[in-house]
Amino acid sequence: MGSAPYSSAANQLSTLLADEPSGPSIQVAIPGPKAKAVADDLNAVFDTRALNMVADYRKSHGNYIVDPDGNVLLDVYAQIASIPVGYNNPALLAAAQSEEMAQALINRPALGNFPSVDWADILRSGILKVAPPGLDQVFTALAGSDANETAYKAAFMWRRQKERGGPSVEFTEEEMNSAMVNHGPGAPDLSILSFKSAFHGRLFGSLSTTRSKPIHKLDIPAFDWPRATFPEIKYPLEEHAEENAKAEAAALAEVEDLILNFHSPPAAVVVEPIQSEGGDNHASPAFFRGLREVTRKHGVLMIVDEVQTGVGATGKFWAHEHWNLPHPPDMVTFSKKAQTAGYYFGNPELRPNKPYRQFNTWMGDPARALLFRAIIDYIQKNDLVAQTARVGDYLFGKLEKLAAQYPDQFANLRGKGQGTFIAFDNPKRDAFLAKAKTFGVNIGGSGANAVRLRPMLIFQEKHADILIDALEKIVKSL
Amino acid sequence: MGSAPYSSAANQLSTLLADEPSGPSIQVAIPGPKAKAVADDLNAVFDTRALNMVADYRKSHGNYIVDPDGNVLLDVYAQIASIPVGYNNPALLAAAQSEEMAQALINRPALGNFPSVDWADILRSGILKVAPPGLDQVFTALAGSDANETAYKAAFMWRRQKERGGPSVEFTEEEMNSAMVNHGPGAPDLSILSFKSAFHGRLFGSLSTTRSKPIHKLDIPAFDWPRATFPEIKYPLEEHAEENAKAEAAALAEVEDLILNFHSPPAAVVVEPIQSEGGDNHASPAFFRGLREVTRKHGVLMIVDEVQTGVGATGKFWAHEHWNLPHPPDMVTFSKKAQTAGYYFGNPELRPNKPYRQFNTWMGDPARALLFRAIIDYIQKNDLVAQTARVGDYLFGKLEKLAAQYPDQFANLRGKGQGTFIAFDNPKRDAFLAKAKTFGVNIGGSGANAVRLRPMLIFQEKHADILIDALEKIVKSL
Repeated sequence: MGSAPYSSAANQLSTLLADEPSGPSIQVAIPGPKAKAVADDLNAVFDTRALNMVADYRKSHGNYIVDPDGNVLLDVYAQIASIPVGYNNPALLAAAQSEEMAQALINRPALGNFPSVDWADILRSGILKVAPPGLDQVFTALAGSDANETAYKAAFMWRRQKERGGPSVEFTEEEMNSAMVNHGPGAPDLSILSFKSAFHGRLFGSLSTTRSKPIHKLDIPAFDWPRATFPEIKYPLEEHAEENAKAEAAALAEVEDLILNFHSPPAAVVVEPIQSEGGDNHASPAFFRGLREVTRKHGVLMIVDEVQTGVGATGKFWAHEHWNLPHPPDMVTFSKKAQTAGYYFGNPELRPNKPYRQFNTWMGDPARALLFRAIIDYIQKNDLVAQTARVGDYLFGKLEKLAAQYPDQFANLRGKGQGTFIAFDNPKRDAFLAKAKTFGVNIGGSGANAVRLRPMLIFQEKHADILIDALEKIVKSL
Repeated sequence: MGSAPYSSAANQLSTLLADEPSGPSIQVAIPGPKAKAVADDLNAVFDTRALNMVADYRKSHGNYIVDPDGNVLLDVYAQIASIPVGYNNPALLAAAQSEEMAQALINRPALGNFPSVDWADILRSGILKVAPPGLDQVFTALAGSDANETAYKAAFMWRRQKERGGPSVEFTEEEMNSAMVNHGPGAPDLSILSFKSAFHGRLFGSLSTTRSKPIHKLDIPAFDWPRATFPEIKYPLEEHAEENAKAEAAALAEVEDLILNFHSPPAAVVVEPIQSEGGDNHASPAFFRGLREVTRKHGVLMIVDEVQTGVGATGKFWAHEHWNLPHPPDMVTFSKKAQTAGYYFGNPELRPNKPYRQFNTWMGDPARALLFRAIIDYIQKNDLVAQTARVGDYLFGKLEKLAAQYPDQFANLRGKGQGTFIAFDNPKRDAFLAKAKTFGVNIGGSGANAVRLRPMLIFQEKHADILIDALEKIVKSL
């Protein structure tokens, strides 16, 4: 038991990278005839209007994604930041082909009722091995949205338990009856505070805390929950220290005001270390320490949403490790590069006072937990978090030079010291992203104008060079 | 392409059943020492208070679940009705060990942006092959809760589009600005109507439509959405036809009244064919036809939640096929025995007018879609829906005899003609379920007093005989 049964040879990063294409290669304009045929066929049964490109994953390898027309692109978008260690990674393939994985796939348990004999071991040798400092328990979920929503539920139950007088105080008849018709006091008038431009998911509770773009929210009923201003930071950070500090102090004051005065009191504040969908908006470690302080002061929980920032991309396993918090967050949510999802917590009081309050049929997926274990092993054995920190610094240095040369095209360059989690603004962003494909690079955007770089953890200096070369060609062509 | 690469020999039901234990076998009282040790160990990192029994899935087979102490139980609960064709089914094992599955596991795409070349084929040769009549498109999700919530989102967007004047009418500035602060008109005051005792999931939107038990809802903020009475039916149905018809007419009148007069107008009505978590509450096909009529009359969508009833257990692939609806439901949601999730729809207008409105990173899981394809193949090749109808009739006949002998112990026996989707009430229900394990049967409950039978689709007459024998022993021992 413990680690997945793959050979140490297959485990080497060098093996994976040696088999990569030597660089991008564009055979036909994208989408080519084969990609078009696939998309047309798919459109009959599945909405394809968000289609970016069709991929042939059998032929994709490492940092490179391949399309059905044979085009090979360096992929620094990586399935919206969710591929951790490359396409067709042999170590993950070995885990996927293990007897344990087949078992997990075909005998999927209702984990809360009928856990398997090895579930504790799967958690300890995987998900919990990378638990953020101070957090030693986990609730497993399926994707970022339900990870956040179950964390919110834990926060509401914790808050009401405290108000009620502790775990042993029974629910009143009035609470039980009113809950069944969605009224207070059983369905309480409490809230989750989130920030302007935040993204926390798209189901009804998580979407109520998402504040990224109207298109994400229009026509969907939402809870009347409070929204605080996320500090509007200027870059480079070093040159705007004073005004940025003022913006952060103002944002913290607004948070405190909303905690004290919003009509529906927040049980928790949810925050991303870097607002990822909202445009790669940063704040300083001091801001987050301040947020920890103000939430603790008022008995409000702090939930750190690491769905996009987690699992190494910022040069720490968890981005909030950059903050040196004196007290850990109350909950940290994860998904994407973990290939599974859930939330970590440390305080036993975040287990609700009775069973079946935080529960569902599957409560996660052991097959995906096994894959995360293999990902963690691979990251640790190949020291990929440190590599990402190093390569990020290298890439950022190159980007600074490009930005000096083309200041309008690489505006507000940000993410220094944050691994490869780097972004910049471009005035013709959508054209920039489309043009990138013609130069063999798959890149994503975020917010209104940002180009966001989200390479995998196997991205090295040589890939950074290819990327930098392509970026210059793109801006010259625009 | 098309079907998964397994041999026709491995595909045979007889192979699976020949390898089953000959019957239950209880070695030590449950939980035995090994199960206790596993539970204690797990409890340190994972909430185990809902634990029913620890399982050793490697040793479980077909209809039988095995625990770490070597106890063998006939499993008619099947992971809360979610194991379709038996533990360690060799056909599913072959699918799990296929190259295609390994690919799907390790190269998980963001399906809306970067679908794989074979995604249309995976859908057509699997999920869509069993689409309910009239519904030819699918939105894939991960579990029952998000399947329902994405269906609700589709309903809200459809409704507002209709109110706005069609897909080409642009959003107003006011809508876009108000949506960002969770207020109307952008975040509209619309609702989903559900029924008393319904269960539709546990995230914030789905939980607002769940009306099963206070423990599911307490302390969680909820939308003020309408709840209609589910007809309170008396059993056996034949003996109470007249009063049941009256109860159903009253419920339909209440639905119509809520549609017309509730302060937050319903965009959709969501209903389970049999209220499964709520206590196995049935209504007649005429009631559901009436519901289809009243929803169509008022331009309200009808969402049929087949998360628990779907995939064969009622003797039809979809339980709503029992109703002979003149017009299909607008959406049908699925999960559990499908081992994946989502909703079917037929009306192209249920695709929102713009991309990225119904979207998330993964939008389902191709690995789980491949497993559903193998499940569908297995069900069809072994004619398991027809078998379930036949075995259900056999089992119901035996239960009627038991009920005649012990009328108080098998009260309100229900599910006649509904395959093996059978339930009865017992005055000492919880003791009944605990005692069942001592006689080698794993059974679940629902609602306040119901014992619900949820065998897999490979349950045969010989298993029914074992179950009936155990049931008699249980009631004699109580």
